[in-house]
Amino acid sequence: MMYRSYPDLEIMAQQKSLKDLKRSDLFQQKGYIAEEWVEAADGKTFNVYDPATLDKLATIPEMGREDTDKAIKAAHEAFQSYKKTTARQRARWLRKWSDLCLENAEDLALILCLENGKTLTEAKGEVTYAASFLEWFAGEAERTHGETVPVANLNQRILTFKQPLGVAACLAPWNFPIAMITRKCAAALAAGCTTVWKPAGETPLSCLAQAVLAQEAGFPKGTINVITTLNGVSEVGKALCESKLVRKLSFTGSTRVGQLLAAQCSHSLKKLSLELGGNSPFIVFDDAKLETAVEAAILAKFRNSGQTCVTANRVFVQEGIYDKFTQALSEKIKTLKVGPGTEEGVFVGPLTHERAVEKAMNHITGKQHYPNPVIKLIIPS
Amino acid sequence: MMYRSYPDLEIMAQQKSLKDLKRSDLFQQKGYIAEEWVEAADGKTFNVYDPATLDKLATIPEMGREDTDKAIKAAHEAFQSYKKTTARQRARWLRKWSDLCLENAEDLALILCLENGKTLTEAKGEVTYAASFLEWFAGEAERTHGETVPVANLNQRILTFKQPLGVAACLAPWNFPIAMITRKCAAALAAGCTTVWKPAGETPLSCLAQAVLAQEAGFPKGTINVITTLNGVSEVGKALCESKLVRKLSFTGSTRVGQLLAAQCSHSLKKLSLELGGNSPFIVFDDAKLETAVEAAILAKFRNSGQTCVTANRVFVQEGIYDKFTQALSEKIKTLKVGPGTEEGVFVGPLTHERAVEKAMNHITGKQHYPNPVIKLIIPS
Amino acid sequence: MMYRSYPDLEIMAQQKSLKDLKRSDLFQQKGYIAEEWVEAADGKTFNVYDPATLDKLATIPEMGREDTDKAIKAAHEAFQSYKKTTARQRARWLRKWSDLCLENAEDLALILCLENGKTLTEAKGEVTYAASFLEWFAGEAERTHGETVPVANLNQRILTFKQPLGVAACLAPWNFPIAMITRKCAAALAAGCTTVWKPAGETPLSCLAQAVLAQEAGFPKGTINVITTLNGVSEVGKALCESKLVRKLSFTGSTRVGQLLAAQCSHSLKKLSLELGGNSPFIVFDDAKLETAVEAAILAKFRNSGQTCVTANRVFVQEGIYDKFTQALSEKIKTLKVGPGTEEGVFVGPLTHERAVEKAMNHITGKQHYPNPVIKLIIPS
Amino acid sequence: MMYRSYPDLEIMAQQKSLKDLKRSDLFQQKGYIAEEWVEAADGKTFNVYDPATLDKLATIPEMGREDTDKAIKAAHEAFQSYKKTTARQRARWLRKWSDLCLENAEDLALILCLENGKTLTEAKGEVTYAASFLEWFAGEAERTHGETVPVANLNQRILTFKQPLGVAACLAPWNFPIAMITRKCAAALAAGCTTVWKPAGETPLSCLAQAVLAQEAGFPKGTINVITTLNGVSEVGKALCESKLVRKLSFTGSTRVGQLLAAQCSHSLKKLSLELGGNSPFIVFDDAKLETAVEAAILAKFRNSGQTCVTANRVFVQEGIYDKFTQALSEKIKTLKVGPGTEEGVFVGPLTHERAVEKAMNHITGKQHYPNPVIKLIIPS
Repeated sequence: MMYRSYPDLEIMAQQKSLKDLKRSDLFQQKGYIAEEWVEAADGKTFNVYDPATLDKLATIPEMGREDTDKAIKAAHEAFQSYKKTTARQRARWLRKWSDLCLENAEDLALILCLENGKTLTEAKGEVTYAASFLEWFAGEAERTHGETVPVANLNQRILTFKQPLGVAACLAPWNFPIAMITRKCAAALAAGCTTVWKPAGETPLSCLAQAVLAQEAGFPKGTINVITTLNGVSEVGKALCESKLVRKLSFTGSTRVGQLLAAQCSHSLKKLSLELGGNSPFIVFDDAKLETAVEAAILAKFRNSGQTCVTANRVFVQEGIYDKFTQALSEKIKTLKVGPGTEEGVFVGPLTHERAVEKAMNHITGKQHYPNPVIKLIIPS
Repeated sequence: MMYRSYPDLEIMAQQKSLKDLKRSDLFQQKGYIAEEWVEAADGKTFNVYDPATLDKLATIPEMGREDTDKAIKAAHEAFQSYKKTTARQRARWLRKWSDLCLENAEDLALILCLENGKTLTEAKGEVTYAASFLEWFAGEAERTHGETVPVANLNQRILTFKQPLGVAACLAPWNFPIAMITRKCAAALAAGCTTVWKPAGETPLSCLAQAVLAQEAGFPKGTINVITTLNGVSEVGKALCESKLVRKLSFTGSTRVGQLLAAQCSHSLKKLSLELGGNSPFIVFDDAKLETAVEAAILAKFRNSGQTCVTANRVFVQEGIYDKFTQALSEKIKTLKVGPGTEEGVFVGPLTHERAVEKAMNHITGKQHYPNPVIKLIIPS
Repeated sequence: MMYRSYPDLEIMAQQKSLKDLKRSDLFQQKGYIAEEWVEAADGKTFNVYDPATLDKLATIPEMGREDTDKAIKAAHEAFQSYKKTTARQRARWLRKWSDLCLENAEDLALILCLENGKTLTEAKGEVTYAASFLEWFAGEAERTHGETVPVANLNQRILTFKQPLGVAACLAPWNFPIAMITRKCAAALAAGCTTVWKPAGETPLSCLAQAVLAQEAGFPKGTINVITTLNGVSEVGKALCESKLVRKLSFTGSTRVGQLLAAQCSHSLKKLSLELGGNSPFIVFDDAKLETAVEAAILAKFRNSGQTCVTANRVFVQEGIYDKFTQALSEKIKTLKVGPGTEEGVFVGPLTHERAVEKAMNHITGKQHYPNPVIKLIIPS
Repeated sequence: MMYRSYPDLEIMAQQKSLKDLKRSDLFQQKGYIAEEWVEAADGKTFNVYDPATLDKLATIPEMGREDTDKAIKAAHEAFQSYKKTTARQRARWLRKWSDLCLENAEDLALILCLENGKTLTEAKGEVTYAASFLEWFAGEAERTHGETVPVANLNQRILTFKQPLGVAACLAPWNFPIAMITRKCAAALAAGCTTVWKPAGETPLSCLAQAVLAQEAGFPKGTINVITTLNGVSEVGKALCESKLVRKLSFTGSTRVGQLLAAQCSHSLKKLSLELGGNSPFIVFDDAKLETAVEAAILAKFRNSGQTCVTANRVFVQEGIYDKFTQALSEKIKTLKVGPGTEEGVFVGPLTHERAVEKAMNHITGKQHYPNPVIKLIIPS
């Protein structure tokens, strides 16, 4: 069981639970294919846990290749008519969906908070961020302009048109489960592509809630399909990559997995959008305003419990301000309240993964070497 | 006669004259209509003087409405076939012309130096600058892309194409006679428009030289026409503005004249590009590098003898550096060599206009009030 | 009184009136300045009539220069803060306004139908069309991208930003009163400009209704101001054109008035968007589908009772299909029901202006020469 | 030896040879790394043959991984300074190179004709086509604009800049050896990337000639490197794909090889431009002009001896014109002169590959099934 290897870590108690949802239909425990909520073909399931309490939140279908192929087929069939919708129609569905996100922001945030561990405040921020992608891509839908090009040969006429590719696979990470799946599918749906979503196994619930709202917004049957899996991620990923019907794959996650997906997509010559890794120095110069610098460092280091792709992984501080900065930062860190995401005033929630807990514990116990995180910056004059 | 009201002003002697031109055909004393070098219809002329020596440089046709109408008609006839040339062809003519400018840079610079007064070094810079517009617009010619637009009604198809307007009138100022006429007509010719040029009466010679090179580059008959005038500028301007055949007018000069042209162009609903006035504060803060600030101020104030639209008309200096800056600037100014443009080492040439001499003299003699040009900047902490 | 000179023309009876409005607050009889509904400074008024019944619909302030100056001043003051709003905020106001238009489409259409004469069906179409501009420019607001430009001198950095100009004057025509005012002000408000509207004197009511909804959508005080006038249009137009605070003027209407506005705007060097005149041949070739051609001709000729800028003013028909086409067109025209806009099944409503009635009567009575409207097209083989 | 398995095929005689080159330095028999003409590290070579005469044209280094790594390293080193050149400088080098191509068009065409088999006329066309890419990308160099983006948070400023990636690998096919290598490297060099070229083993000579001219045009040491190989293509391709220093790979060729390269590039997450396969129906409807249709079909089918990616691989002809078209096409085909590329009047040169000869022979002898190439198109009314 998760986290049990660290028996000293306090188990937290949430102040809100899934029972507090205003719309209970936003909590779904099935996959979603061709407008139907479905179990895995082989009936397998896996559990989703609250990382704060280690309580089980949901039991979800552990889907595999067969389910994935069904979802791809549904998306491919839907594409035949969806690609003929007008950009304006697609824009309106996206805008309606954006409105529904904002209307249900509290419910979405609660689901997200419970499955991911981030605080309710951050979760609400992420829902708003997700809605903003729907709003943005609604505008993009009507602006997929091609070009008319001056010719070098007057007997020719050169025009370019932008057309949807076909089925797009959207693979989302667990650290921003609702914002990332929304960004990926919003772009695809705006362009006239249909989609198969694969949320991270730790955090499928907010994705499933988004699917509920997308359907409500009016997206036609088969334009959105959701495959859930925890342990079958390699199998599902391979099925998406190797399918000739999937014409586009969008992934946010580790560089290692990105490389693997690129290799698996090579035979079908799939178009790829990969958002990988992250390397984010935080730099403070002598003439910085101390308070602003500390505030920015706190956000850069502790937002989403440090689990973002732009979390500062090195802090460089110029020697003139080094002592003042490190002291002010330490003091500020001591004031940060750690606790479950639903508790008022909590700034740092639990880590989402047991792996992350282990890594953090190793840093503390010294099992794993980790260089001084704040580095003195000496600029030769 | 120019400048004679200031008998104490030294008459300079040029070290080079029009006789030093490698290509004497670049020195033209006629107007240019439909590939012919022509006199004014009524035979009138005016003189062009070297502002350094007050020597007469050339006698030029004093053209009027009749000549202007002929030039417009020639341009309009040329437009009927020129608009059908390919963008690539126009690009190549422009690029060839750019090459010719650079090949003949010394001759063009000498003509420019003698008629405008700026130093040979600055004149060469302006010729290179002019050539760069030809190079740039050669690239623009092939990039006049229109758009294909996603439709809200699937029975429609929406395309936009960019097409040349027709005859473009290009009115150039005397302070950058070759760069400005080239910029204006390069854009028009790239787009497929034909042109009528009206150089300033003080500086028609470098424009006429450009017309020689444009013809040599291959531009067809009637695509470039030059109307020269000193005292008939109102009549010629009015003819250009009121003509229904002229579809575009581009002017660089004073706000007052720009307003007048806009009014005269209203009936024909001509498209306008107006580059008017200029208001250029020069600001020095306490943490500026003194040397760099002084160098920049010298350029901002004395380039082209202060006769540019971005010449600093107020200098604001923060109190901490005020004394050092003003002293360093004064010392630097004392080292600037004043003299005829062709003389080695001269930094400041003569003013182009007698009017400008008068204004400058009034500042010195105190006849005209002029506030302290360097203002102390006190920033409340 | 309007139309009285044609006593034989039947007076129609509307089946709906302003009393049928669901929201009576959409019917306003005042001008609108700085979020207040105001009378003219001198208390003057004019009447608005229903062109179908010749009944008086409303009494409206006859505003002049003083009122106009107040409106400009209000818009200019509002600009100081409105220009600092984010593009996203402006987009949301526009989108909210679009939603309100669609929610109140029936009321807006009824007002429009009664003041302009077009049928309720066409009026609803125009309201939807108006809302689509709000939706479109909401998207444009967030896409006012500037450029970063590769430099020729590595010490420089070149950036362009797009910024709002200031107060924009929006002058709308009577044939599409709600769509045109909305298109003009939506662009301006999206960009961050504030606006002064001047609807046509015949059709101010739907503009005033739009102002009600814009305020409801959240646009800040002073960003929208409405000046109403029938007989003082020259005075109001002049005030808008000559004001230095108005930086942009957008007008849809006749070429003659467009020329006049261009002249009046020349001194303030105002930026202009002019949509003038119209010349729309309708061409039928031998291989056309007869039914489609006739349907298209009916729309091209009779939409909005023939009062659009793209109404076909010449119909060219190739000789092979000429007889069949003209016969089919005549038969179709006989079936078109003429009547008041609110009556079910009416296709052609009354003409908006008495002047238009006179012109049409002259065509019929032969007082005014008018060539055969359908011209046989003979293409030499 | 090539083609010997078809002893009945006539050996042709060229009317021009490499001795006819005006500039003998355009004929190079070495690889090109860091501005030096080099042998393979292990001294191996391969021969290039004239496909018309089967005569040996040249002996070329058979390079491998070691040479490739050297070339990549040279390109990477050159990138450190090349990326800092101005866009204008790069544009001028490209333009100069374009001029040199056109000046040496006859020599380049002769080399191309002899190694590839295409006629001199077609070869000249390809050289002009190649030069046009240099001209085009010269213009693109100065237009790599980024964007300034309106912010949703007024404390932020969003700018995008376009920057060169690093080393680009350019893999060119044998059917358009000079045009394709030029298109690929022109884009890379314009952007500020440095390049490693790998021409096809059958046709390295025109690529090497282009490298001579590029150097002459002024491109700095190491910006262009050429790796030659015939039998080591897998090894060289792998080295290019797997190198972390190569950030971009551009390939024109078969789908199968494209898939392989994509897989090999997955680990280094290289950006790819793949131009693969081709599927080009040629369709003739009943109302086509017979003569134009036949002419177009001849070009579509026989240009470059049928060895282009847009060579028609199916001809669909509507039944009404089928008989007339096939007869006219057959007659036209009989008039096409087959022969060596340098012979006057020859329209169809030899096939470049022995493999292609075999495929063609199999079609003729019936060993390989091939459906009727002209298909009757019956459109149900």
